[in-house]
Amino acid sequence: MARLVMKFGGTSVANIERIRNVARHVKREVDAGHDVAVVVSAMAGKTNELVAWCREAAPMHDAREYDAVVASGEQVTSGLLAITLQSMGVQARSWQGWQIPILTSDAHTAARILDIDGAELLKRFAERKEVAVVAGFQGINAQTGRITTLGRGGSDTSAVAIAAAIKAERCDIYTDVDGVYTTDPRVVPKARRLDKVAFEEMLEMASQGAKVLQVRSVELGMVHNVRVFVRSSFDKPEDIDPHGTPPGTLICSEEEIMENKVVTGIAFSRDEAQISVRHIEDKPGVAAAIFGPLAEAGVNVDMIVQNVSEDGKTTDLTFTVPASDYERARDTIAKAKDRIGYARLDSATDLAKVSVIGSGMRSHAGVAAQAFKALAERNINIRAITTSEIKFSVLIDTAYTELAVRTLHTLYGLDK
Amino acid sequence: MARLVMKFGGTSVANIERIRNVARHVKREVDAGHDVAVVVSAMAGKTNELVAWCREAAPMHDAREYDAVVASGEQVTSGLLAITLQSMGVQARSWQGWQIPILTSDAHTAARILDIDGAELLKRFAERKEVAVVAGFQGINAQTGRITTLGRGGSDTSAVAIAAAIKAERCDIYTDVDGVYTTDPRVVPKARRLDKVAFEEMLEMASQGAKVLQVRSVELGMVHNVRVFVRSSFDKPEDIDPHGTPPGTLICSEEEIMENKVVTGIAFSRDEAQISVRHIEDKPGVAAAIFGPLAEAGVNVDMIVQNVSEDGKTTDLTFTVPASDYERARDTIAKAKDRIGYARLDSATDLAKVSVIGSGMRSHAGVAAQAFKALAERNINIRAITTSEIKFSVLIDTAYTELAVRTLHTLYGLDK
Repeated sequence: MARLVMKFGGTSVANIERIRNVARHVKREVDAGHDVAVVVSAMAGKTNELVAWCREAAPMHDAREYDAVVASGEQVTSGLLAITLQSMGVQARSWQGWQIPILTSDAHTAARILDIDGAELLKRFAERKEVAVVAGFQGINAQTGRITTLGRGGSDTSAVAIAAAIKAERCDIYTDVDGVYTTDPRVVPKARRLDKVAFEEMLEMASQGAKVLQVRSVELGMVHNVRVFVRSSFDKPEDIDPHGTPPGTLICSEEEIMENKVVTGIAFSRDEAQISVRHIEDKPGVAAAIFGPLAEAGVNVDMIVQNVSEDGKTTDLTFTVPASDYERARDTIAKAKDRIGYARLDSATDLAKVSVIGSGMRSHAGVAAQAFKALAERNINIRAITTSEIKFSVLIDTAYTELAVRTLHTLYGLDK
Repeated sequence: MARLVMKFGGTSVANIERIRNVARHVKREVDAGHDVAVVVSAMAGKTNELVAWCREAAPMHDAREYDAVVASGEQVTSGLLAITLQSMGVQARSWQGWQIPILTSDAHTAARILDIDGAELLKRFAERKEVAVVAGFQGINAQTGRITTLGRGGSDTSAVAIAAAIKAERCDIYTDVDGVYTTDPRVVPKARRLDKVAFEEMLEMASQGAKVLQVRSVELGMVHNVRVFVRSSFDKPEDIDPHGTPPGTLICSEEEIMENKVVTGIAFSRDEAQISVRHIEDKPGVAAAIFGPLAEAGVNVDMIVQNVSEDGKTTDLTFTVPASDYERARDTIAKAKDRIGYARLDSATDLAKVSVIGSGMRSHAGVAAQAFKALAERNINIRAITTSEIKFSVLIDTAYTELAVRTLHTLYGLDK
């Protein structure tokens, strides 16, 4: 008998038939003796409808009112799933963010969870085996008592936070893929599902473009050591042995992973653009003069590369942005030319970033060097390089993305 | 400067364009210096959609979960109207039932309002002229903290209750008719809009089939002496002089009505059915033996007529039910034949009830007699009669409904 959190996204609860399928998944775990909290998103399409109404009412609108409107989507699903569970003979009740309560910061539309009181849920597990059906994506502003939302994909974060609050053995994220892969199987058919991924690795995978889980939920899982299990919502509930090991990927602490592979996965993102600011003065405050205006303009800066100055006087600085932010970024830097003081702007679009991730890199030297050699042998030019403790990324022309990913996938033995 | 409650139904907030029109109505009152609380229903069609989902999930479902699902409709509208008002430069915020709070009984799906704390709304009126946009139809269970709803049309009740809590000068109900008429204008083209109607009269009008206002809201208005003004939501906001007397009907205490008319209006309802239980014993407990089983079967009994026994031994009892309950009512009485003890059941369908209402009846004798004479002259047979202090009703064949209503409308000088 264990304590479980199960999270289902919008596609899994898009209509009553699918909600019934979700209820069967939940019943399976309850019948196996587990205490269950389910976290649900809004029915597919509903959040978009609500957001569109807010925008139609006024392009610029009060974030607090937006939250009150948009949070209603999850409220509906939580009630409907509770009704469906009850009709199958499973004790259940719905919980809104303000009822538990899930206390958050006052950053409406992108609130951070501050505290969750899990006592009442635990009491009901013990007293009557009651399933808690929790509306995801929402909370209550601890100061004002108003409804808050956690930002897009926030239900993953809700689920992990609830799991931490009730000290769940595992937080199962049911999604439209059956786990985390060594890389995108559409690009590398030989990509394999990983049984286990360390939190740190998953953080790099998620922020590098593997869109299985919201980054924040992984961070939260890491901080509170919540084991997060990514699995398929398409598996038939009746085909699953609740006592067996279902297919999926467990995201957990490094200690739980016996053999740390040197490289765990290859992530990539296309549609990157690069801007190089040439011959800036090599003195304190120059980076701030560049990235301050970009932040104000809401430009999402990704890689930043600055090399050591050759002559101690001027240097070059390169950064990348999503292609959609490119024009804005260029204009911003052009406008700030006097403030920054540079000789020339070079830029390029149609670039891709390919990242190699693995916590084993910490203890293995020369991992990146192998990649540079392999890419060179394929005549793939590397425009820029950045590294962190457990990953390195290269910026290349988009046209070479698939070739580069496949090359690296084979190089690090991920083809099996 | 006054304190006002304005209530808008589902048709008035069916889309963003109409919500904008509602916002213009509100702005007009705010610009005139009034403090305003607005009560809104769900967007037209939304409540039906939510109810249908609950039924699809399970035909029999937990009323508490139904309430959580269905109350979300008003939550959406309240946020959208607040956004729209803000975009017009009007200070506004949305309030859910649990935020104010609107404390109710635990009778989920048909909860009664127990208490509303208006202090915070009043504080915000005083401090920043902030319009309170209140989600109608809902409250919070005072014991359990769960969301409750007040039953269909409950937003009228919410509006009057809010008006009582903030001691509003008037509660304006914006609806698709421009007031309360002497009778249905589709039947009697000469029907006139009434300037004022006493609460007691409106109660009889509403329960007798004039579907302008929910009966409960009128009761609540009467108990707390909230002046309720029924007016059209189709009037253009910019055509209305906020300091003038807009067209509509004021529902108020009798004292506020200078000359009490003998007859205020004629109400009617078609699709009635009659069941007469013949030769029952004239002894205590017989009426209970009939109406107990009917109540258990959920049959909605309307008129009940029992005449004084001629011989002191047996008597007849007649009651009416809506045509939709007719079969069930007959079956119920037939099954309980042994328990009740009667000789025969007579019944008839295709009947109509016509009611004459007026608080002046209290001080005028012979009002009903005039009606009986006029109907007889038209060869309209009266099957049964019931009376109360300020109204009397006759049961006739449906075919004569229009003729009877027109005859009585003219008889009591309502044609003008």
